[in-house]
Amino acid sequence: MTHRKHFGSDNHAGTHPRVLAAIAEANAGDADSYGADEWTRRLQARFAEVFGDHAQGFPVFNGTAANVLSLAALLRPYEAVICAETAHITVDECAAPERFTSSKLLPVPTPDGKLTPELIATRMTGVGDQHHVQPRVVSLAQVTELGTCYTIGELAAIVAYAREHDLLVHMDGARVANAIAHLGCDPRELTDGVDVLSFGATKNGAMNADAVVLLRPEAASAFPFIRKQGMQLSSKMRFMSAQILALFDDDLWLDNARHSNAMARRLAAGLDDIPSVRLYQPVESNAVFATLAPEHIEKLRDRWSFYVWDDAASVVRWMTAFDTSESDVDGFLADIRTVCG
Amino acid sequence: MTHRKHFGSDNHAGTHPRVLAAIAEANAGDADSYGADEWTRRLQARFAEVFGDHAQGFPVFNGTAANVLSLAALLRPYEAVICAETAHITVDECAAPERFTSSKLLPVPTPDGKLTPELIATRMTGVGDQHHVQPRVVSLAQVTELGTCYTIGELAAIVAYAREHDLLVHMDGARVANAIAHLGCDPRELTDGVDVLSFGATKNGAMNADAVVLLRPEAASAFPFIRKQGMQLSSKMRFMSAQILALFDDDLWLDNARHSNAMARRLAAGLDDIPSVRLYQPVESNAVFATLAPEHIEKLRDRWSFYVWDDAASVVRWMTAFDTSESDVDGFLADIRTVCG
Amino acid sequence: MTHRKHFGSDNHAGTHPRVLAAIAEANAGDADSYGADEWTRRLQARFAEVFGDHAQGFPVFNGTAANVLSLAALLRPYEAVICAETAHITVDECAAPERFTSSKLLPVPTPDGKLTPELIATRMTGVGDQHHVQPRVVSLAQVTELGTCYTIGELAAIVAYAREHDLLVHMDGARVANAIAHLGCDPRELTDGVDVLSFGATKNGAMNADAVVLLRPEAASAFPFIRKQGMQLSSKMRFMSAQILALFDDDLWLDNARHSNAMARRLAAGLDDIPSVRLYQPVESNAVFATLAPEHIEKLRDRWSFYVWDDAASVVRWMTAFDTSESDVDGFLADIRTVCG
Amino acid sequence: MTHRKHFGSDNHAGTHPRVLAAIAEANAGDADSYGADEWTRRLQARFAEVFGDHAQGFPVFNGTAANVLSLAALLRPYEAVICAETAHITVDECAAPERFTSSKLLPVPTPDGKLTPELIATRMTGVGDQHHVQPRVVSLAQVTELGTCYTIGELAAIVAYAREHDLLVHMDGARVANAIAHLGCDPRELTDGVDVLSFGATKNGAMNADAVVLLRPEAASAFPFIRKQGMQLSSKMRFMSAQILALFDDDLWLDNARHSNAMARRLAAGLDDIPSVRLYQPVESNAVFATLAPEHIEKLRDRWSFYVWDDAASVVRWMTAFDTSESDVDGFLADIRTVCG
Repeated sequence: MTHRKHFGSDNHAGTHPRVLAAIAEANAGDADSYGADEWTRRLQARFAEVFGDHAQGFPVFNGTAANVLSLAALLRPYEAVICAETAHITVDECAAPERFTSSKLLPVPTPDGKLTPELIATRMTGVGDQHHVQPRVVSLAQVTELGTCYTIGELAAIVAYAREHDLLVHMDGARVANAIAHLGCDPRELTDGVDVLSFGATKNGAMNADAVVLLRPEAASAFPFIRKQGMQLSSKMRFMSAQILALFDDDLWLDNARHSNAMARRLAAGLDDIPSVRLYQPVESNAVFATLAPEHIEKLRDRWSFYVWDDAASVVRWMTAFDTSESDVDGFLADIRTVCG
Repeated sequence: MTHRKHFGSDNHAGTHPRVLAAIAEANAGDADSYGADEWTRRLQARFAEVFGDHAQGFPVFNGTAANVLSLAALLRPYEAVICAETAHITVDECAAPERFTSSKLLPVPTPDGKLTPELIATRMTGVGDQHHVQPRVVSLAQVTELGTCYTIGELAAIVAYAREHDLLVHMDGARVANAIAHLGCDPRELTDGVDVLSFGATKNGAMNADAVVLLRPEAASAFPFIRKQGMQLSSKMRFMSAQILALFDDDLWLDNARHSNAMARRLAAGLDDIPSVRLYQPVESNAVFATLAPEHIEKLRDRWSFYVWDDAASVVRWMTAFDTSESDVDGFLADIRTVCG
Repeated sequence: MTHRKHFGSDNHAGTHPRVLAAIAEANAGDADSYGADEWTRRLQARFAEVFGDHAQGFPVFNGTAANVLSLAALLRPYEAVICAETAHITVDECAAPERFTSSKLLPVPTPDGKLTPELIATRMTGVGDQHHVQPRVVSLAQVTELGTCYTIGELAAIVAYAREHDLLVHMDGARVANAIAHLGCDPRELTDGVDVLSFGATKNGAMNADAVVLLRPEAASAFPFIRKQGMQLSSKMRFMSAQILALFDDDLWLDNARHSNAMARRLAAGLDDIPSVRLYQPVESNAVFATLAPEHIEKLRDRWSFYVWDDAASVVRWMTAFDTSESDVDGFLADIRTVCG
Repeated sequence: MTHRKHFGSDNHAGTHPRVLAAIAEANAGDADSYGADEWTRRLQARFAEVFGDHAQGFPVFNGTAANVLSLAALLRPYEAVICAETAHITVDECAAPERFTSSKLLPVPTPDGKLTPELIATRMTGVGDQHHVQPRVVSLAQVTELGTCYTIGELAAIVAYAREHDLLVHMDGARVANAIAHLGCDPRELTDGVDVLSFGATKNGAMNADAVVLLRPEAASAFPFIRKQGMQLSSKMRFMSAQILALFDDDLWLDNARHSNAMARRLAAGLDDIPSVRLYQPVESNAVFATLAPEHIEKLRDRWSFYVWDDAASVVRWMTAFDTSESDVDGFLADIRTVCG
């Protein structure tokens, strides 16, 4: 088969057919540009329905931009962002946050990609001292870079700590739908106390549309200028808004997430009887992190494409997507069994 | 009719059907992300065919990014960009160039949006003086913000001046296809001596894809990092590359441009017998700049959407697009005649 | 004579003896660093006495920093600064403001270096439009780059315009003492309605100390961090504070300014009977701008050092300083008479 | 006694009398500004004598600027700096490096403030991968933030690693004289293979003058613009150059450093017979890091001013300076014995 499904990344997947159809439908003659179109208006209403009346959503082109512009909405240059040492914003963005915001990131080692009030507290140094950047934002990823999810209680604890210490909260939600699907919670519950959300759509079936969702209304008047200065204002914005609208329609975003999560759990469950493969992190989203022998990794990669997360520790990352099928998983499992069994 | 064609902007148009079809075709299972896909590889080959073997093209999401990242590829922060006072980069980008490059723009008043060696020379001050930014790049728009085109000879004169004075040349080609169509030249002729081109596709039938085309090979090794740090690296890049490929296929980009140029000329020709409407600039692309009485402008805007370019001088801008029809033009002309005749 | 006084710049002068003595006095054993010393505390009290209780002064190393950090205290990156086309911040700072603030400067041509509400209004375009930088600060120089001074009424008109249009006001006071001396006003009158002042001391007898004076108390909590991040926090700050204190003692700053202003007026008066030399601007500070024949300029520069302001218009700038003597002026005038008479 | 010497920081000391005298001597009439003066010319010659003919020195106002501008001379924004986790540039500069260079710092935990090839190698990840900043500079402090010194062999190993891996080397020499005094080496030996040196003078007896010393000649043409844009160009530069010249005269810089080093060794030696106080790091400069009981720290701080380095580990830092006397040390030791003995 030409297009056998791999486990490299959820961004190796294509565009969901209903998203593609929505793009085509939006291609109906002229529309006002730069967001003054019907699709974007409708999207704004949908964001308010989903995340609460105080929510204001602004489409941007990718997750890097969603994160960087979210932070820019909250920070002055001498302020700093506390994040996990594994966070995408500090590891994988080629210093885009630093370049656009002029701010410093303060990474904290974590066992599982998740911050806690105690871990955050280790970075609350130099407050009020002019020689030090001033911690101002806690950036947490939900789902984390290690595929784990904060519980609602864990989030509430971080939010409470932030409020006590005059910190704002950014949620990197590149896979926020997977977290909502995993927790079975209301999106408003998930983002309670969060100031700004990077809303991920591209990894969940969109083509090239994510969004900054401001949950702190006072940031909204400045945001259009931040987005434009950040090179993220689309002229034909309707085609981006239409993508996200399609994901919201009939809860396609949650269906996609539930499906990819289920496929990851199926994969993890199938590993149960392969003793030489051990889960490295609990499976709480569409990622399976596992430890297996280097020679097994090598053999598997001859036939399947996926990433080695940590060479030294022999950890791999296997991602599922909205279009991963049960038979994709089962076929992969069969090969894993052959190689590692 | 619901979707009557207006004359507000070429970015009010939708996506060309062949571009849309190409996007759908690219939606075929998994593909490697971040540009390591077949479509992007093919696109790179097409850029080399079109602009010469030394050309390397990098898709970005919009024209702002194409311009800003092009300049970032050429500049150090204490260096400066000489451009026309009407240039998009200085008027309409919300200081995106300044924020990303830390450099200064040095705008020059021009009668028609076009730089000349003489005009550039007025900004060549303070060279070698540590108190002054150092002029390093000439940024010219082809088509200009006023719809005019440089002739090949005019371009050659600027390039020669630049070489003599150790300046690099950036061409803002948001409407480069319209310029090529107008001049009837080879793309390589147009960009001879240019160091980097902002290649515009979105205004010419794409959905959300433009490109930086480096014609200075030594800039290429750094560019992937500049694009990533500039928040312009698309994960599912195949869908952007497919758009530009569709425009190159069978010269759709030039056909689109020839058509929109022709519609602008048709509109301009129709104004000949309306003495109260005068052309403000020669019609050399898909824009008609005209002067008419303020009360006529007001009446026309009751029924048609377009921009007033200069309130004080009573100048309007009428743009055509790839999907403007002869009857759109004729219907608009009929109304102009009624109002202004 | 080895050290004949020239007319090139007030920064060719040395340090006033009383300033030097104050530095030596401050060299008394240990002192807390980074501004936690007695001299800096006393200086803060002096700034409040001189500019009003709401004034808070922060020493910085030079005028570039005073201007850039003043603007940084008022601006977000997408906001812009309206200034005269001849302003030091846009002509002579090698894009230091752009690099540190990421903001854009919007220069306005003026006949005499002075902004007016009408001139400012020409740059109040695109307000609320996301494509445009948002005008936020009016930066005026008092004394201007052309040696002219705003009257108190002219300043009040600008402040009133600023308040009406939600603009803040920055005063570049690199030669603010000369303006106060010229107008004979109270420093509080001069800065009424101003939000932040670049307080110039170096050109007026200090060695290397200027200051940012915040007249907008809400900017004060952030400023120590802006100064540190701007590389302008001195460890042995007492030696900078002592310089400015010495200038305030017994009004040395105003005596110095009155003297250099008087020397400029003496020079200008002496030109009255030399018809071939014409004043280019009124003499309202320690600068004389004059027009004379190119060949006369050349001859004079054989023996005296000064700057040609505008080659094309044959305008020169002659600056006096706190240590220019009457005989320096008379000697120079004698030579001008010989050359041009 | 009013001015009892404390052990808080070498920047609590004043200005060396010979430096002060040199400033006064430089106050001789007019001099050309912005570095075109005799003192700066002589200083440039001295830097070449001391650090080699390829060395070019540029005075700046403080150590923050020396470090930031040094890095700016070597980096593009997507490149990164590997440094010790305790390095001044990442801990104590309020993100000044990030703001000015847009680059990222990559800190490495170290036992003693010193990098090694092995430690550097842990940060050499993502090379060539567009998602990651590209390691480009190794920044090492000599003396380190923990008062330790690299041996010549350790430096050579780092330089060799850097050359193999296409990295440049920055030396933060805020206390470089103390390192030279400690090692008894030639300055050229110390900086062999280093690309740029932050030359510290202020902590060693100057008032407010440090310097960037470029040892990589190709960086020199851009540097004047970097310094100006970085707000570090002094108009009356002679007064800064005169300070550093005075330190070079008759090797005052090395005498000062030898003396303060000796005072630190005297202090450390005196601790030998106080078992409850243990050295935390070897004493290789003018700093003594020691561990003692929290209640002893508290009592000592009632009478002496110094910093607690690490509250949790109960580590203090005691600094000596060029003007610390034997009796200052002995008096302090007597009190330590009383409190901790």
